[in-house]
Amino acid sequence: MDIVLIGSGHVAYHFGRAFLREGHNVKQVYSRTLGHAQGLADQLGSVSIASLDNVAIDVDIWLIAVQDNAIPTVLEGLPLEFRGVVVHTSGATTASVLDRFGTYGVIYPVQSMRKETEVDFSQVPLAVEGNDTFAEGLLLQLASSISGHVFRCSSEQRLALHLSAVFANNFTNALFDIAYKLSSEYGLSFDLLVPIILQTAENIKKHVPADVQTGPAVRNDQATINRHLDFLKNHPEYAGIYNAISNYLLKRK
Amino acid sequence: MDIVLIGSGHVAYHFGRAFLREGHNVKQVYSRTLGHAQGLADQLGSVSIASLDNVAIDVDIWLIAVQDNAIPTVLEGLPLEFRGVVVHTSGATTASVLDRFGTYGVIYPVQSMRKETEVDFSQVPLAVEGNDTFAEGLLLQLASSISGHVFRCSSEQRLALHLSAVFANNFTNALFDIAYKLSSEYGLSFDLLVPIILQTAENIKKHVPADVQTGPAVRNDQATINRHLDFLKNHPEYAGIYNAISNYLLKRK
Repeated sequence: MDIVLIGSGHVAYHFGRAFLREGHNVKQVYSRTLGHAQGLADQLGSVSIASLDNVAIDVDIWLIAVQDNAIPTVLEGLPLEFRGVVVHTSGATTASVLDRFGTYGVIYPVQSMRKETEVDFSQVPLAVEGNDTFAEGLLLQLASSISGHVFRCSSEQRLALHLSAVFANNFTNALFDIAYKLSSEYGLSFDLLVPIILQTAENIKKHVPADVQTGPAVRNDQATINRHLDFLKNHPEYAGIYNAISNYLLKRK
Repeated sequence: MDIVLIGSGHVAYHFGRAFLREGHNVKQVYSRTLGHAQGLADQLGSVSIASLDNVAIDVDIWLIAVQDNAIPTVLEGLPLEFRGVVVHTSGATTASVLDRFGTYGVIYPVQSMRKETEVDFSQVPLAVEGNDTFAEGLLLQLASSISGHVFRCSSEQRLALHLSAVFANNFTNALFDIAYKLSSEYGLSFDLLVPIILQTAENIKKHVPADVQTGPAVRNDQATINRHLDFLKNHPEYAGIYNAISNYLLKRK
């Protein structure tokens, strides 16, 4: 398919590379900053643009991959005569923000994407929504060409999925950050925690998380909880998180 | 070495199997419940006891692997004439709780241990502390025979490490549990979150957690945060955790 990439950040980068690999034609890459657009366009054998007045309308797809809060500005700049499918890639934004266009939809990748990290796009779950049969069919076709894990997903389901991913990825990494800082503070290498972190993640391939929950809170070991909280008395921000999660685990019993 | 295992739960099970594999002799397995002791003793070619009056004193090590809150009761039951090294395996308990004995120490495994889950003990970091040169030497020798990742660790460092492991393992799994429940509630398979969870864990092998932090909080995207919190209005316990971790990430910037 012929595609215009609107955005040149982490998500646009990984989509662009996946499109190229599967033989799609990325006709243009847009960024407000021409240098950014140029950097990605060069890698994709594409053309950079820094004004949406120049966006190609003789293509199949406009794929908007910008930060959520930049979507409204991009939409205001896009010409309305486009007859292809306008798509965004946001987990937390309804498809209907695109309803000024005739055919539109969403392809949301359930993966954290950074340019610095390799992503095997064929393994990335892609949540697809279209406003009509044509849009949905075309987007399912496009998504299936770059990933083996494509599924239809309403805007409400997608928000639940995005929020779940925030817990499973963003917040999990924040806990790793705290563990890193706490252990460093006491002269301990973070390498000591790598095996337990990897096993915690591996467990979910075979087990429901609730079935493998361990720790002082789940066995209601108040003495250990108090020892931990006393240890955290100079770190109220860690203690706040400790209390919130422990209270969840205590009540969950 | 000749060892008595005091306890027959998850941690005792994995230590016992590692000792057996490396040619140590587990002379007895103690549990308050004889059937529990018997179950593990059978697997280790050992003898079960349900009374500490019968504990063998002609051995090198008593290894106490019971829940933290059961340690005081066990200590009251143990005869004081033992001349070997008394060891506990708790991350959050000082070595000095054992100071009624002449030589004592700690071997704390930095891994979550459940009987149902295979543990490659040779990869488990073991934090070792002894009250004197003899105890520390013997415990370093024993620990090094079953793991390639042995290090000396004070009681204070061990508490920091245990607490770090609670963040990195127990709390992380609690977040997976919430993600599981949220996605299930909206008819989504937890399998959709497996790739992002595995990548989140893999990242820490190469990156400092703070360097790979993503998500709405770290980019101060209040619109998305508000959308998430609105979505969680029927789940105040999830919202409490969401707020605590988001506030940490927002301030961390």
